[in-house]
Amino acid sequence: MKKYNFNAGPSILPQYTLDKTCKAVKELDNIGLSVLEISHRSKEFQKIVDDAVALVKEILKVPENYNVLFLGGGASLQFSMVPYNLLGDNQTASYLETGAWAQKAIKEAKLFGNVNVVASSSDKNFTYIPKNFKVPEDSAYFHVTTNNTIFGSELLEDLDSKVPLIADMSSDIFSRPVDVSKYALIYAGAQKNLGPAGVTLVILNPDILGKIERKIPSMLDYKIHIKNNSLYNTPPVFAIYASFMTLQWLKEQGGLEEMEKKNIAKAKLLYDEIERNSMFCGTVEKDSRSRMNVCFLPTKPELEQEFIKFATEKGMVGIKGHRSVGGFRASIYNAMDIEGVQALVDCMKEFEKQHA
Amino acid sequence: MKKYNFNAGPSILPQYTLDKTCKAVKELDNIGLSVLEISHRSKEFQKIVDDAVALVKEILKVPENYNVLFLGGGASLQFSMVPYNLLGDNQTASYLETGAWAQKAIKEAKLFGNVNVVASSSDKNFTYIPKNFKVPEDSAYFHVTTNNTIFGSELLEDLDSKVPLIADMSSDIFSRPVDVSKYALIYAGAQKNLGPAGVTLVILNPDILGKIERKIPSMLDYKIHIKNNSLYNTPPVFAIYASFMTLQWLKEQGGLEEMEKKNIAKAKLLYDEIERNSMFCGTVEKDSRSRMNVCFLPTKPELEQEFIKFATEKGMVGIKGHRSVGGFRASIYNAMDIEGVQALVDCMKEFEKQHA
Repeated sequence: MKKYNFNAGPSILPQYTLDKTCKAVKELDNIGLSVLEISHRSKEFQKIVDDAVALVKEILKVPENYNVLFLGGGASLQFSMVPYNLLGDNQTASYLETGAWAQKAIKEAKLFGNVNVVASSSDKNFTYIPKNFKVPEDSAYFHVTTNNTIFGSELLEDLDSKVPLIADMSSDIFSRPVDVSKYALIYAGAQKNLGPAGVTLVILNPDILGKIERKIPSMLDYKIHIKNNSLYNTPPVFAIYASFMTLQWLKEQGGLEEMEKKNIAKAKLLYDEIERNSMFCGTVEKDSRSRMNVCFLPTKPELEQEFIKFATEKGMVGIKGHRSVGGFRASIYNAMDIEGVQALVDCMKEFEKQHA
Repeated sequence: MKKYNFNAGPSILPQYTLDKTCKAVKELDNIGLSVLEISHRSKEFQKIVDDAVALVKEILKVPENYNVLFLGGGASLQFSMVPYNLLGDNQTASYLETGAWAQKAIKEAKLFGNVNVVASSSDKNFTYIPKNFKVPEDSAYFHVTTNNTIFGSELLEDLDSKVPLIADMSSDIFSRPVDVSKYALIYAGAQKNLGPAGVTLVILNPDILGKIERKIPSMLDYKIHIKNNSLYNTPPVFAIYASFMTLQWLKEQGGLEEMEKKNIAKAKLLYDEIERNSMFCGTVEKDSRSRMNVCFLPTKPELEQEFIKFATEKGMVGIKGHRSVGGFRASIYNAMDIEGVQALVDCMKEFEKQHA
């Protein structure tokens, strides 16, 4: 039976990425070695990194002077690296509190300086993205989480900011065009729209660095990674290779304009069904809904387990909602095509027929 | 033409690991999903982590109360994590300086407290492991690098230490039995004897933690990773899976006693040829020679490039020595069988016939 992978992350990847990486694990480009066995100092891997960086720059239209890094440690390590490099002991950083990951980022920043939460949607269990907040102009930076994987909300606008704007885009990067020049630093764990878990993409304007006094461990120092083109230490070779394959696929698919069109259509199909279907209701305010993670609840709570069982039998994987929200969550990243979303919608319709 | 992979790391992996991971990238255990797409909170992945931890404990005979972690960020991140967690601002840690990686570990430790280098072999370009040094009993810990990948020396003895003994075993873990109970903490980047780059194995006695006053970023806090069984954040799922496959292979091969026998035989074959062959000479003192990384120089320096070209044409990969030593380096990790070493020896003999 065909499986439809709605996992929140690690999550569905393009078949292209799976086919290419499988082949490269067997043998990389007829060099007689597996991609798992090549030296990170080999010309083969240098070309992979260089080409992957070039594709990130091309696809996201990254400004010329920005750096693109592939680092280990996950986005969770960035929660610490950002303030380690950018927040002086006596400075204040502003954060927008839109969910659990934003809260984790805030927690780490507090180890290094002061944190000013400019707005929070915690009053309504993060079911909306706050608006009309004011970021103090003396903030060291302003940090946002563009997509809240757990709560299913998304900040679809590139904000104007008078202080360096920093974004955790782990779960929506590459899902739509972004004006990278408005951001001082973007980071994203790969395991949603890019590749397997184990590598984190960092895009930054190097002008923001070197402005505070603090001894920084080498592995947490952006300047060192920039100087070494992501090769200060042995990088996660395989995860970078797989990400490179997804970048190739993204380009072949028509890039981010095309991705955005498909993602809008997929999200509309699913949200429309949630609104129409008497068995389900959405959790997030309409103008804050995520195109990546669609959260919804059963109108009859006693049928929650029943729907999960029903959907699982039809091949749906990973639709159980996060415990912070309950109900259901369908993550419909780039690699999920509209047929997959239609399969879920069909499943919801059939469930309604049986239980309404 | 068959390739013989003598890369220093990332390096040769068992064919078993390559076959199994290739299959799992296509589909993991008939679950309809690739190993790259499964949730790190899925029962499938939980079993992979649990089984991998159990195999590490079994193969290395890890004491019951120790923790086994799979972390991201590489051994280079451990250079900072160790002092971050264990070295108070006014305390002193002792380090044995046996090569470039030990030096990097020392550099990071200096950010957190005082460092006492108990002995160094830098006077002779790290061609030996110092002996008869004294570790002050008030050291917060004593750090050693058991195998020096770049310089080809190895500390084959499990030292007795009155202070917590910490070892970077990145390039010789699983190559021989080790008395883990003598160590307070062992860490090892996977990309030599375990798996692909992107995951680091940490084995530690939790009793050493919580003894200093310092705010530690969550991702750098061993206590947090222990509490979450390596799943505090999204771990490098694929790299852990591949490592698990190598652990299965290790066990099937007869474990560490068998590995040590094979590694002794392989190293003897190659070092004997280096001693016999008029074209080559070793770089490391006999009692400090590494069984993993065999460094040797041409007796006629003008033939260095010629031998690399000659060996490359015969399928040898990665035998160029590190720039700090020059000449040649053959890394003969667990997955390199004696036939591969014999192929290199044959190549050296043939080269001698042509040039002596």
